[in-house]
Amino acid sequence: MSALMVNSEKGYIPASERIPVIARPFVSERAKKTLDLVEKFVEEECIPADTVYHQQIGVGVKERFTSHPQIIEDLKAKAKKLGLWNLFLPKAHFSEGAGFSNLEYGLMAEYLGKSRTAPEATNCAAPDTGNMEVLAKYGTAEQKKKWLEPLLDGKIRSAFLMTEPDIASSDATNISLSMRQEGNEWVLNGSKWWSSGAGDIRCQIYIVMGKSDPNNPKPYKQQSVILVPADTPGITIKRMLSVMGFDDAPHGHGHIVFNNVRVPVSNMVMGPGRGFEIIQGRLGPGRIHHAMRSVGAAEKALEWMLARMSDERKKPFGKLLSEHGVMLDRVARSRIDIDAARLAVLNAAIKIDETNAKGALKEIAEVKVQVPETLLKTIDWAMQAYGAAGVCQDTPLANMYSIGRTMRIVDGPDEVHLLQLGRNENKKGKAHKSRIEAQAAKSDELLKQYGLEKKDVLQLNRVSGGKSKL
Amino acid sequence: MSALMVNSEKGYIPASERIPVIARPFVSERAKKTLDLVEKFVEEECIPADTVYHQQIGVGVKERFTSHPQIIEDLKAKAKKLGLWNLFLPKAHFSEGAGFSNLEYGLMAEYLGKSRTAPEATNCAAPDTGNMEVLAKYGTAEQKKKWLEPLLDGKIRSAFLMTEPDIASSDATNISLSMRQEGNEWVLNGSKWWSSGAGDIRCQIYIVMGKSDPNNPKPYKQQSVILVPADTPGITIKRMLSVMGFDDAPHGHGHIVFNNVRVPVSNMVMGPGRGFEIIQGRLGPGRIHHAMRSVGAAEKALEWMLARMSDERKKPFGKLLSEHGVMLDRVARSRIDIDAARLAVLNAAIKIDETNAKGALKEIAEVKVQVPETLLKTIDWAMQAYGAAGVCQDTPLANMYSIGRTMRIVDGPDEVHLLQLGRNENKKGKAHKSRIEAQAAKSDELLKQYGLEKKDVLQLNRVSGGKSKL
Amino acid sequence: MSALMVNSEKGYIPASERIPVIARPFVSERAKKTLDLVEKFVEEECIPADTVYHQQIGVGVKERFTSHPQIIEDLKAKAKKLGLWNLFLPKAHFSEGAGFSNLEYGLMAEYLGKSRTAPEATNCAAPDTGNMEVLAKYGTAEQKKKWLEPLLDGKIRSAFLMTEPDIASSDATNISLSMRQEGNEWVLNGSKWWSSGAGDIRCQIYIVMGKSDPNNPKPYKQQSVILVPADTPGITIKRMLSVMGFDDAPHGHGHIVFNNVRVPVSNMVMGPGRGFEIIQGRLGPGRIHHAMRSVGAAEKALEWMLARMSDERKKPFGKLLSEHGVMLDRVARSRIDIDAARLAVLNAAIKIDETNAKGALKEIAEVKVQVPETLLKTIDWAMQAYGAAGVCQDTPLANMYSIGRTMRIVDGPDEVHLLQLGRNENKKGKAHKSRIEAQAAKSDELLKQYGLEKKDVLQLNRVSGGKSKL
Amino acid sequence: MSALMVNSEKGYIPASERIPVIARPFVSERAKKTLDLVEKFVEEECIPADTVYHQQIGVGVKERFTSHPQIIEDLKAKAKKLGLWNLFLPKAHFSEGAGFSNLEYGLMAEYLGKSRTAPEATNCAAPDTGNMEVLAKYGTAEQKKKWLEPLLDGKIRSAFLMTEPDIASSDATNISLSMRQEGNEWVLNGSKWWSSGAGDIRCQIYIVMGKSDPNNPKPYKQQSVILVPADTPGITIKRMLSVMGFDDAPHGHGHIVFNNVRVPVSNMVMGPGRGFEIIQGRLGPGRIHHAMRSVGAAEKALEWMLARMSDERKKPFGKLLSEHGVMLDRVARSRIDIDAARLAVLNAAIKIDETNAKGALKEIAEVKVQVPETLLKTIDWAMQAYGAAGVCQDTPLANMYSIGRTMRIVDGPDEVHLLQLGRNENKKGKAHKSRIEAQAAKSDELLKQYGLEKKDVLQLNRVSGGKSKL
Repeated sequence: MSALMVNSEKGYIPASERIPVIARPFVSERAKKTLDLVEKFVEEECIPADTVYHQQIGVGVKERFTSHPQIIEDLKAKAKKLGLWNLFLPKAHFSEGAGFSNLEYGLMAEYLGKSRTAPEATNCAAPDTGNMEVLAKYGTAEQKKKWLEPLLDGKIRSAFLMTEPDIASSDATNISLSMRQEGNEWVLNGSKWWSSGAGDIRCQIYIVMGKSDPNNPKPYKQQSVILVPADTPGITIKRMLSVMGFDDAPHGHGHIVFNNVRVPVSNMVMGPGRGFEIIQGRLGPGRIHHAMRSVGAAEKALEWMLARMSDERKKPFGKLLSEHGVMLDRVARSRIDIDAARLAVLNAAIKIDETNAKGALKEIAEVKVQVPETLLKTIDWAMQAYGAAGVCQDTPLANMYSIGRTMRIVDGPDEVHLLQLGRNENKKGKAHKSRIEAQAAKSDELLKQYGLEKKDVLQLNRVSGGKSKL
Repeated sequence: MSALMVNSEKGYIPASERIPVIARPFVSERAKKTLDLVEKFVEEECIPADTVYHQQIGVGVKERFTSHPQIIEDLKAKAKKLGLWNLFLPKAHFSEGAGFSNLEYGLMAEYLGKSRTAPEATNCAAPDTGNMEVLAKYGTAEQKKKWLEPLLDGKIRSAFLMTEPDIASSDATNISLSMRQEGNEWVLNGSKWWSSGAGDIRCQIYIVMGKSDPNNPKPYKQQSVILVPADTPGITIKRMLSVMGFDDAPHGHGHIVFNNVRVPVSNMVMGPGRGFEIIQGRLGPGRIHHAMRSVGAAEKALEWMLARMSDERKKPFGKLLSEHGVMLDRVARSRIDIDAARLAVLNAAIKIDETNAKGALKEIAEVKVQVPETLLKTIDWAMQAYGAAGVCQDTPLANMYSIGRTMRIVDGPDEVHLLQLGRNENKKGKAHKSRIEAQAAKSDELLKQYGLEKKDVLQLNRVSGGKSKL
Repeated sequence: MSALMVNSEKGYIPASERIPVIARPFVSERAKKTLDLVEKFVEEECIPADTVYHQQIGVGVKERFTSHPQIIEDLKAKAKKLGLWNLFLPKAHFSEGAGFSNLEYGLMAEYLGKSRTAPEATNCAAPDTGNMEVLAKYGTAEQKKKWLEPLLDGKIRSAFLMTEPDIASSDATNISLSMRQEGNEWVLNGSKWWSSGAGDIRCQIYIVMGKSDPNNPKPYKQQSVILVPADTPGITIKRMLSVMGFDDAPHGHGHIVFNNVRVPVSNMVMGPGRGFEIIQGRLGPGRIHHAMRSVGAAEKALEWMLARMSDERKKPFGKLLSEHGVMLDRVARSRIDIDAARLAVLNAAIKIDETNAKGALKEIAEVKVQVPETLLKTIDWAMQAYGAAGVCQDTPLANMYSIGRTMRIVDGPDEVHLLQLGRNENKKGKAHKSRIEAQAAKSDELLKQYGLEKKDVLQLNRVSGGKSKL
Repeated sequence: MSALMVNSEKGYIPASERIPVIARPFVSERAKKTLDLVEKFVEEECIPADTVYHQQIGVGVKERFTSHPQIIEDLKAKAKKLGLWNLFLPKAHFSEGAGFSNLEYGLMAEYLGKSRTAPEATNCAAPDTGNMEVLAKYGTAEQKKKWLEPLLDGKIRSAFLMTEPDIASSDATNISLSMRQEGNEWVLNGSKWWSSGAGDIRCQIYIVMGKSDPNNPKPYKQQSVILVPADTPGITIKRMLSVMGFDDAPHGHGHIVFNNVRVPVSNMVMGPGRGFEIIQGRLGPGRIHHAMRSVGAAEKALEWMLARMSDERKKPFGKLLSEHGVMLDRVARSRIDIDAARLAVLNAAIKIDETNAKGALKEIAEVKVQVPETLLKTIDWAMQAYGAAGVCQDTPLANMYSIGRTMRIVDGPDEVHLLQLGRNENKKGKAHKSRIEAQAAKSDELLKQYGLEKKDVLQLNRVSGGKSKL
């Protein structure tokens, strides 16, 4: 057993043996083997590589967003050789991937979530994953050849441009980047931001949502999605956005301006007015991928917390942190919440496998809210265990927190999902009310059958003023 | 479709269709059919009967603990006829039950948890369930004939006497009721409390834990478990204990005094000193049953909350409660937490099925803590939706809260389980620490391989005082 | 020092020395002396009497609501002799009371909140307090003579009938008990519930809110308040309401039916249509009194928790509860929250003293929400420290919880107060927005003055596709 | 009224009119005037200057920690002219300051906490404040002349070097930087980190705690505090530490190495072995200053949240954020918590004024824990209101969060303060227990006096097996 992999007091227990029992029937033998390979690759190769990756990025804004760390290419080569490539594309819908179900990939993604480099190294990094799904599902043969193939091969990267700075993007009908057809071209004008991955110099294709038919009476028909090569004239990356102090270089989150950007009509995906159809298919799996990786990140935070609690050099008031009851309480609560979060994510993945993203709407929304809360609480406690070391560059915790924090916002803030969940559940309100009333009516009948007069538990029937009523 | 069963805006969706996808491979077709029968029995028969049950219990302390509501016998007859009997005894270990797994019973128990009468009506009520398991597993042929058979048949009831008033019972080595052997009898002296079910006049047998060998150097060998007929001379039920204001009559929770109570040695279970062995096997499944029913209770609370939110007579500030965003937010959060709790319970049940209660120690401890929190929060919100009606006798919520509240205490307070969970998890601390260190060492090697000198992200190397260092 | 009063490791520290320093300038020397007397009376007389009080109440519904515990009269005699009588009536507005400010009474009420009998013993019990304020402030000479005088003297008790079962009472414009004038009488028809104190056989006067002018276009002019003797024909106390399982006998909470109840027009308070005016003045101080007593109840819960933590008989896993870190953490958090709650209550009381209940709207709403949360959390933790003993009749905790729980509902559920607070605060939103914008504009000016071009911290200005922009 | 100051729907309400009523007796007229001046200076000058300040700092690590933004000097000149200088030095103990009490300064510090530049502009920035207090209180005439005078004048800055990377610094007896006397010099060896302010090129003096007498049997006598000029040979600032992704340049948090650093014995403060005495006096007020500013930061976060909620461009689902009930609920809860936090801080400040930092140990510990929780929750909700904009550089929220997060760690993590608070409170446990027992004994006496036999509320006294006992 490699020292890089020991994960319990009994040494190394493989990932495949730690799958929750309830999920096991859904995991093929091949997936189990791959899962163990993924864990090994992440723990032995990727996590150690993370430090190198950070060192290979420059320090000034411009350097950081033009560097391309060599180690990522070396990891990609290793991953390809191991067969750990394009794991995310669900076998039910795509022939291009590694042939796993969402559930199986979900188990793997947990481990990818423990390393900065692992998702990209296995070509499973957002936003490429969702973009590849869009292209594979809706792209023309030409579009696939030009963009999907190099993406699948890890040669180029991509961005998904939807959110805009000047509107409430949590409601996508507000998206307003102008798309105007002129001859056989579409002309784009407007601004996008939070274009994740746009900072990467290898990012060559943007999938852009805009408003092509602003006067359509059906609000869900006004939008289109179009493919825009990153080097099309008129596009400027104005600035990168920071996330709780981090720039997430070299990928980053771009604020991009479109000034009369012209794209051939053949770049339209599916045809004008089909924007909503496309993004709805895209967002579901993405949310699950985020959630899966977040479970892994939470485990990592808990591992770091436990490591600190065993640090012999850190004995406030003469006791190891692990001898302080409050710390053990937090460990236990983290354990409970993470295990519960994992089950919810796996159940959602299976629901997608058995229906599709739309069929798993409720389950996806649930984990969208549940998982980041668990993640952030765990990281927060881990930070606190480390004291000042926990907020600085000496642990990965602060950076993890910044990423976890955005999970409560990306793809719609929690509040939107909660509102939607609440409304859907509320649809059952009348049914519950009428059932409860029907049951009460039956109670009344039964009372009669049993010859009982209905009495209140505290029946008094007294004339007020204290005297008993006849 | 019966009006007593409508549970969604689309009418009635059977329980078997609402099983989380992740659990489905574990549920046989027969179990699905039984599950739907259970739901039907609970919604159509038991919930309406609950009111009658409460009316058939008297009002004074003595009446309440001597009455035996007739309706429960009528329900038992119906349940037997439907095959809904002794559902809880897991097929893997017992031939006496209905032949379901813990997982399958778990799904059913959720529905039983929605009604006061349902668990007893199906002979699945605590503490009989655990007591039947003990007798079936460890009892002699004679003990089985005398006590297990009538229990399995619903003819008598039983109590489990473990907790004591004068010690910290959360640590069972403290149990101190004296058991002294005299000839072929054991003589018992001491006090027990929280003897649930002891109030029922049909309760004929006590399973009693006591200290038979106080000087045994092995603290886990000092205790024994013995069968004590309820009418043995020397036993007095001193009083019943209330739970947040409720007496839980007619079963109740007894405070019982033993004064030279004599029992034949043949009543000993397994033999002297084997008390711990017995209770450890007993407690696991009981905790899961509580958790399963608690999930059902939480669903019921949510249903009541939703019913109120649709009440046209209750429009504060001109809007239905369901139009107030805060209410929908709570509905959504309840939905998330209940769904997560259910998955955790089902996973724990499968773990018991695949190993045993001991093998599922972690999973059981997790749901022991997680589920009551979810239940209580949901009830609390439902109460708040009802306003004053929510805390009084006009809804089942206050009584449900009182039961839910004890779930954080019975079978050991949460704190004990959290401490144990935390300690077990902490055992991995050194492994995590050494792995993280090994990974850091590998990072250093990699940096050398890539020709990089390790630099801190905010490296300054300046002589202090502001001048740069050479 | 009496053993009944020792309250710290240093013996007895008088209440007057424990007043938060920030509140001291508001407390007269006379109030300090009275405060110490109140503490002494509560600890030495009332708390020991609570048990007797409970024993003197009968057991059946009818007994419990017709008994009048003798000990309360004995306590009242003692309190009167000590000058601890009608402490609540603020000196600024009433000459009938003991001459203290709301702040001074607030400090005293904290101690009253530690005992069941203390508020009534000092004639400071709800709902009489609010009712006396109404009569003193708005009553005619005749009304005062008939009802205020015996109330001030503790000869009779009263109830305030506002909430109704069939509407959303949290919005008082919904109140709909019909008041119809016929000649020189008003005729009342309808139902009231949560009429607290109506169970007491000494309760002789109801202050009733109803709808006298249902067609008045001004919704706040439709209601009136009228005095109704409890023995007026046509009034029936249908039943008493339970609160989380408790009946709060002998006072209780009545569900009362009005059937052609006739009252002379001279019983109207202030005149028809002035109901809102009256209740608004009434509710403010009542909320503060509840809050003050709740702070005391929270202190009591913490004291009980600490007492248990020092119990040598309760040593789970060989350690006193006070040696378990989680318990100390809860003690500390309770301490923090209670101390903060007290300051908020005292500040609100001073605000009432310096303006009036309306002027302290925000402060009262704040403590209305803040204090019960603190109280309930503290009780919950105390219960958990006691384990099963904490939920049963062996500690006062369960009963305290039931009372505390209603505090989140009485006088309007928390949600209504939060909504109102949120809306009031939101009125400042535009001001904050315009200020922030003006400050940003000034930043732009300053940048120019300093010869700086505004740059984003992550400015990139690169044509996308990776090439730098000129 | 300046547009830069409007703070309510009624325009501008001065800070002096918004002082909580309970605190008013403690505020002199002069302090009220100064308070209004502080608010005006912060809102009109400092907040607009914050942007310029950030622009004047360079971008690379070395630039950022060598730049000195000119605007801070311009603000200092303005502040001095306005008399807003050295406001923090409490009049009771120091003649060097502006002559205000801790309470008065507390009110002012709230406003300083709303701007990055304000504390330094008024010479009230940590760690100089605490360092000036140390020098003023314990320094020799020579030390004062050399270091205190230029500090008071804002000519130089300082750092306080206590925390070390290799030990559990939350327990200061662990501090181990070696101080060895050689002739008339002390020789220092070891490492310090989290030396806040050490990055500033104007930082000329370090106040250093180290271990001068490691074998002293009294662990609180082993440490000394010594003054070390920043340019003393042997000192290297190895790197700066980041805080949740931010570097806090140009001040920053240094990791500093001492290699045979020699300082004259005359630089010792108070004499060898008096380190604990000095730091205990120093930490109290510092914690209060942090808390005061944190209250202001929380108000600022709430203001930003409210501003966003009124943004007409941001209407998810057709409604302003301020029309969503969940948002108003959060506003209300923030309002409640911030108002409560302020009262706690002000009460602690008065306690310091009336006794000293030691006398206010409990109050300081309480706000140390309470205030950052309030601050972080408020910022978190404000972020969420802004969506993605809330975590990036377009609002001050992310940076505020990073600072607020450290408040749970600096000067000892929350856990240490909670443990200490819990232990102190627990000292009363036995007193509470004996009092409760004495009260119960008196109850028993009273029962006898009233001729009552003590009965349990659920007394049964039945022989078990259902038959009643005689």
